[in-house]
Parts: sequence; structure tokens; C-alpha cells
Amino acid sequence: MTDLVETRVRYGETDRMGAVYHAHYLVYFELGRTEFMRRRGLAYSDLEREGVFLVVTEAECRYRERVTYDDLLSIETLCGEVGRVRVRFDYTVRRPSTGRLVAEGRTVLACVDASGRPKALPERARECLRNRG
Amino acid sequence: MTDLVETRVRYGETDRMGAVYHAHYLVYFELGRTEFMRRRGLAYSDLEREGVFLVVTEAECRYRERVTYDDLLSIETLCGEVGRVRVRFDYTVRRPSTGRLVAEGRTVLACVDASGRPKALPERARECLRNRG
Amino acid sequence: MTDLVETRVRYGETDRMGAVYHAHYLVYFELGRTEFMRRRGLAYSDLEREGVFLVVTEAECRYRERVTYDDLLSIETLCGEVGRVRVRFDYTVRRPSTGRLVAEGRTVLACVDASGRPKALPERARECLRNRG
Amino acid sequence: MTDLVETRVRYGETDRMGAVYHAHYLVYFELGRTEFMRRRGLAYSDLEREGVFLVVTEAECRYRERVTYDDLLSIETLCGEVGRVRVRFDYTVRRPSTGRLVAEGRTVLACVDASGRPKALPERARECLRNRG
Repeated sequence: MTDLVETRVRYGETDRMGAVYHAHYLVYFELGRTEFMRRRGLAYSDLEREGVFLVVTEAECRYRERVTYDDLLSIETLCGEVGRVRVRFDYTVRRPSTGRLVAEGRTVLACVDASGRPKALPERARECLRNRG
Repeated sequence: MTDLVETRVRYGETDRMGAVYHAHYLVYFELGRTEFMRRRGLAYSDLEREGVFLVVTEAECRYRERVTYDDLLSIETLCGEVGRVRVRFDYTVRRPSTGRLVAEGRTVLACVDASGRPKALPERARECLRNRG
Repeated sequence: MTDLVETRVRYGETDRMGAVYHAHYLVYFELGRTEFMRRRGLAYSDLEREGVFLVVTEAECRYRERVTYDDLLSIETLCGEVGRVRVRFDYTVRRPSTGRLVAEGRTVLACVDASGRPKALPERARECLRNRG
Repeated sequence: MTDLVETRVRYGETDRMGAVYHAHYLVYFELGRTEFMRRRGLAYSDLEREGVFLVVTEAECRYRERVTYDDLLSIETLCGEVGRVRVRFDYTVRRPSTGRLVAEGRTVLACVDASGRPKALPERARECLRNRG
């Protein structure tokens, strides 16, 4: 099982400097996280259907190399830490053609119920996330 | 009462051609519509609190002149037609400094309840929308 | 050659009504158009490298059915009309699982040079676009 | 001179959890940074016209409280550090009505020329940024 997801930069994700606007990397991170979870049998849309929500409480990104429209990106996701309520994901974005590093970052997510109150991550979710793949 | 709203183009709204990415005009239209309603005592966020939702069923835009980062835009909104369930808004986007036309368009919205079923626009809403200002 | 492209709805593309925010359909249309062109040997990024730009001059969408996070969409693109300077694309967005219609629309694009002046579409581009696939 | 900028949450900035999608805070930070600079006589659009670009090299955000559609936000911007090539901005986002903290973060930007090569921040820019207001 690989934890790589590929995506192509969309036109509207670039800005007038010609490169991807920096906020969109958080979206790429989410693509990585979503597929990381799905491949472990933990589709996030199913979690929400069961009343379990993951909200981002911290996000961080370091931008290493400029990419632009139509460039192919590969996003590697690791689950860095699984706590009772919180989980940390680490991301590395590369150009698959050359392996060059484009950006890296992490997000911390907290498990909450439908009204936004913190709740423990379901045990099944914790197991899936700890699964090294 | 004026039906003009001003907004400044954000950096992330431009694309690598240097101008505003075309999809963002639908967001500008929404800014216009939101303030049009608020000025008539019909804050859309209040409507939603009462279980009344307006969903866009048609949108259309004609792009006339290129604008870019930090340009100031004025959005003029008119309520073109108020039906039992549907309402049409017409928009004109200009540069306030010169009055030059930047874009024009319209959206049709349908009134639905929380589960997405069509429902009649509340009478109070219809009156506010018909108010010429 | 098929003119279908599939994409999955991203979390940030939904709004608090629970469905895709209407402006993002113009982005889906662009995904369709980009792949339509690439499959005919006309990568849009190559066109720009040659100083040929396509700017959207009209866009229009009719929304038929609500879709939400993680839903799979298929976008069918047709090139409706190829003029000297302008080209029209027509789009149909469906759920691939059921074939149900989600949205349909069209965009008109004009060919311009790097400084935004209209120019004739290169003959090679016109031929590729007319190619029925 | 105040370093507060106010903005209202747009509908498309919310996601289906009902709150602002986390990536948009980087856009709010940019609104704060843009006005911070403008108020010190350093309009970023003028800088670009002179061939001076600021690219984000690091971004970070901690999310403290949920906000949703139509909520008013105030963004406070501080220039935390001005180096030869890099500049750090710190941001605090609050609800102006209650003063409650919504989010806080920082971005580091590097000065580059039109081809993306690092260059020293112009002396005038450094002085403006150091100006405590």
C-alpha cells in the first residue's frame, strides 16, 4: 500500500505570480489525508455519517519550490501521532518526475461531535490510522 | 439606499494570466446579493436560521474587461424577478474610478427547506426583495 | 477516445448548506476542457508557452442535483463551436454511478495574445478542437 | 494608525461542517498584510510594478474558535521581523464584537525578483515595515 496521491495543479490554483497560491497547499494536504484514510478503510465521509468530525486545529507549511499550472504533484501522507482526541498528519509534496521537494507541512486535527465538542477518536479509527500500510 | 457594494480583488483571486480567475465573479455576485438583502432588512443568515435556504439554480456571467489584484470593483445588484419559489438577481460589476463595465451576469435562486425541498418564499422576504430601495 | 473526466468533490468545495458551492462548477468545467484539449494533442499549457491564451468571455451553468463531499463526478465536454477567435465548450456533469444529471453549462473562450489582444486561433488548434475524438 | 482590518465571512468560505474552511485563514492573513503595508505607504501592487515580489515561504495557523458565514472578523497584523531578504508577519484574528480569539498565525515571506531569484528587500520597504504605526 502506497501513501502517495497524485494531483495536477488547476488553473485557478495559480496566482498572478505564475505559481500555485500558497493557501492551496492545505487543500493538497487534505487530498493526501483523505486518501490515506480511505486506503485504510476509514473513509472520512463515513466517519461524518457516524457523527464523528475531524477539525483542523493547527496547520503549517514550508514552501520549497515553485510549481505552476498543469504540473503533476505527488503528496505523501504519514500519520505522525494518534492521541485520544487529536491526530497529526505529516505531508511531503514532490514532483513525481524528478522527486524534487515542493513543500512539506503538517496538520493537527481534533475529533469532535456534531455540535463541536471534543470526543475520543473511535477505537477503530485509531487502529486504522496507526496501520503502517 | 444604494445597491452598490465595493470589494477589492484579493491576490489569490488572480490566476497566472494576471487577471481575476473567472469563477470568482460568482463570488462577487454573491457579495452584491448579500448586501442587497441586508439593506432591505433581510439578512440571509437570519433566513437560514429560520430554515429558509436559497440555492443557486442558474448562473451566468459575461466578462467585459480584465481586472487584477488590488483593483477596486463596485457590484450593482438588482432583483429582476420575484416568483413564488424563485428569485432572479442581475449584477453589474464596474470600476468605480472610471465607471467602465467589467462584467455582468445573473443568478436564479430557488427557495428550499433544510432538506432541499422547494418551498414558497416567505411573504416578508418577497416584499423586501421587491422593495426598489 | 472518451471525453469524460472524473473528479471527486473536495471538502473545501462544499459550503455550509452541505453541497458543492456553485462557483466550483466552473472549475469542474475547466477540468473537462483541459483534458478534452490534452487528449487531442493540444495541451493548454503548451499553447500558453507559444503565446496563445484562451480567456473566458461567457460562462453559464444550470444546477440540477445536489452533490456533496467525496461524491464522484464525471464531466463530459464537447466543443460546440470553433470560430476564428472564439470557441464554445459545452459541459455535462453526471454521477457516474447512476448517470444522473448534476449540472450542465457552457463557456465561450476568446483567443488572445500575451497582452490581451484578440488573435486568431492557430490553425492547428482549430483542427484539434474540431476533432470528434 | 490601527493595524486592524475587518472582513466578513463569505458563504463559499464555509464548508459543510458549517464553519470557515481552514485554508481561507491564509487569505485573511493576506488581507491583513496587504492593508498593513498600504497604511505604511507600501502598496504591494506598487512593489510588484517595480519588480519586487514577496513569496510566502512558511505559513502557520492555530485555530481557536469556530466562525461561520456572515460573521465579522478583525485581523490584527504585526511585522515580527524584517531581515535582508525575509520578513515575518504575525496575525491575530478576533471577533470584534467580543474580542474573542478566533485564530492566530504567522507567515514568512521572501523577497524575489521577477524570475524568482532572492533579492534584498528595498531599503524603503524595510523602513516602512519597521514603522510601528
